[in-house]
Amino acid sequence: MTQHHELISRLARPADSKIVLLVLDGVGDLRTEQQPQTALDAAHIPNFDALARRGTLGRIVPVAQGVTPGSGPGHLALFGFDPATPEADIGRGVLEALGEGIQIRPGDIAARGNFATADAAGNLTDRRAGRIPTAECERLVKAINEKLVAVRDVEASVYAGEGHRFVLLLKGPLDPNLADTDPQQLGVPPLPVAASAPSGEQTAAKLRPVVEAIQAAIAHEPKANRALLRGFATVPHLPSVPELYKLRCGAFAGYPLYRGVAAACGMELVPCGKGFADTVAAVKEHWAQYDFFFLHVKKTDMAGEDGDLATKIHALEEVDAVLPELLELGPAVVAVTGDHSTPAPMKGHSWHPVPLLLWSEHCFVDECSAFTETAALHGAVGTVRSSELFGLLLANAGRLAKYGA
Amino acid sequence: MTQHHELISRLARPADSKIVLLVLDGVGDLRTEQQPQTALDAAHIPNFDALARRGTLGRIVPVAQGVTPGSGPGHLALFGFDPATPEADIGRGVLEALGEGIQIRPGDIAARGNFATADAAGNLTDRRAGRIPTAECERLVKAINEKLVAVRDVEASVYAGEGHRFVLLLKGPLDPNLADTDPQQLGVPPLPVAASAPSGEQTAAKLRPVVEAIQAAIAHEPKANRALLRGFATVPHLPSVPELYKLRCGAFAGYPLYRGVAAACGMELVPCGKGFADTVAAVKEHWAQYDFFFLHVKKTDMAGEDGDLATKIHALEEVDAVLPELLELGPAVVAVTGDHSTPAPMKGHSWHPVPLLLWSEHCFVDECSAFTETAALHGAVGTVRSSELFGLLLANAGRLAKYGA
Repeated sequence: MTQHHELISRLARPADSKIVLLVLDGVGDLRTEQQPQTALDAAHIPNFDALARRGTLGRIVPVAQGVTPGSGPGHLALFGFDPATPEADIGRGVLEALGEGIQIRPGDIAARGNFATADAAGNLTDRRAGRIPTAECERLVKAINEKLVAVRDVEASVYAGEGHRFVLLLKGPLDPNLADTDPQQLGVPPLPVAASAPSGEQTAAKLRPVVEAIQAAIAHEPKANRALLRGFATVPHLPSVPELYKLRCGAFAGYPLYRGVAAACGMELVPCGKGFADTVAAVKEHWAQYDFFFLHVKKTDMAGEDGDLATKIHALEEVDAVLPELLELGPAVVAVTGDHSTPAPMKGHSWHPVPLLLWSEHCFVDECSAFTETAALHGAVGTVRSSELFGLLLANAGRLAKYGA
Repeated sequence: MTQHHELISRLARPADSKIVLLVLDGVGDLRTEQQPQTALDAAHIPNFDALARRGTLGRIVPVAQGVTPGSGPGHLALFGFDPATPEADIGRGVLEALGEGIQIRPGDIAARGNFATADAAGNLTDRRAGRIPTAECERLVKAINEKLVAVRDVEASVYAGEGHRFVLLLKGPLDPNLADTDPQQLGVPPLPVAASAPSGEQTAAKLRPVVEAIQAAIAHEPKANRALLRGFATVPHLPSVPELYKLRCGAFAGYPLYRGVAAACGMELVPCGKGFADTVAAVKEHWAQYDFFFLHVKKTDMAGEDGDLATKIHALEEVDAVLPELLELGPAVVAVTGDHSTPAPMKGHSWHPVPLLLWSEHCFVDECSAFTETAALHGAVGTVRSSELFGLLLANAGRLAKYGA
């Protein structure tokens, strides 16, 4: 933990106030010559704009100037961690496994799996096996697990994810220094199991029969006849956000990765749908149960990744329409922001600061009258690191004691 | 010391220029739905506004985003220290004692005292003894000191403060791990002397007869019949600001706490009244004697603590009226800011960035035309940490050498 993190944690005190953190994944966008308006510029979002007029704006930098974060670091920063420290460097496999509700113990290793298609020569033709349906994935996972029980010297199992995705879990103590078997390109076979550092050699030897068993279970499949593994990692040792801040935390996220990040720092996972109306309904149902509500909206990021500005605009408008229901619950603090920017012109995550909209009774009503990247540049919060946001949330909720005499 | 602090200190060089740091305690305020204008927005302060037009604005963050500082850390940051480091964590008892001009040696312990009233059953009915006048406090302190000379094994004395306040000093070497005897509530008796950690047990044993002697001296008093102690602390080991920056420093503050912070970092305490006109008169008298002048205005903070916007506005206007006299002295650098914000709607200190007005011949004349929080947001200094201000003051005064070849 950084000095700043320790200070905030030391000052945190309980209160009755409730905090809502609404993460519009990848919300930040770009103005370019070809795209003169961002999604926030173009969207009709009267409820966000009204909140902006009553509240304060600013911008958050997820990791550091110029650094494009993955979703893991992006969210850990929002939860108050310095995402550039080793403790915050959590493998995606672990995050997805945690998000699926899988119990991982210290020393266990998880990896992300993709079902893929290879041709008769064994060369990959589709790294996602034609995006097989989840039911198909579940069938394959069941077949693989039946084979895995016979593998000696290591306890391994796979868990179905969404579509072509699965998680491989190996019971430890094991060393996570293993190279990906996913070559990240077509026309070549999957890579052989290999250690990425000498300390991983023993684990690699244990993993080889596991991968062989998986391969044997699916070799005859028409589409999903290969399995690709990446992101081998042990379970993280993150301090618990509820303990750090004396805060009962509920995570309302529809997708495993985001549920996993929340679980990795000790938040409770609340089942909820993927649409924002479903998410808010779940929040309403559990309103008495938590102090801090992490709400995740995925569509904005997906549209950005697809370079589809119109869909990103539509996703924002969908959330805006439901926002009043969330505000009616009476949170003391509402923050709306993203884990990173996913500008449509870039079709991917980016390093650009993310707009932040913060409202509380004591937020400082600045002169911003709309929730956009450009308005946020002039907001009273200024440009701060994403990891500094959590202190602001607690302060606005009356949950930080005064520092010093 | 932080790396930044060491760098500034290493580059500091003497010069003939004079620096004025005018601290309007708690000056920062809020715009809320109920209070659409801050004190600076509403005040008629033509001299500050004229200086803003000739100068540059910015905002300073006392400790970290979201962290509400006490006056100690708030001022230490203005004097260039990182207030989040343990060296800057000084007990209020020590600060007030230093502010009263009491000599404290390493190992000595100081505590803040309040005279209080208890009923016949011994339960507190007034934690401030009806705010007895200072003369009354001085009489009681004299009576107590006469009893304290008879206490064996420890050298103890009390010093009168303002009204019901006093300072207890115990000559060391002693351990400061002692719990407060102030229960911070009415209807209960004062707490017994106790260690707050095992290392404090011996000191607690020495303190017990001291507290008994104090009690014996005042038991018959009609109002001030109890003494409450809090904030036991040893003397700080702060580097000296005059030595760090090769700068003769005079502190012009009317209240003990602020005099104490200045004394703790090696500044000379200049006697001066509490009104700003008196303060400026004292500065004028000592103009040749110092390079750096710390001026403290308390009224802005007191009005904020009382939630009294009108009085806060009036306090600003009072200072503004005298400002020309200060400027006529011909300082090379003038900085006007606060140690923290004390927004009237919050009736207390807050975490919000504090507006800064900086003038020197080379400050960069930005587009700000008034000294307000909102103008400051767009000032050329930007938003920086309070502890970064001192380097800016020295630089504007031609007192920092170039770094590197």
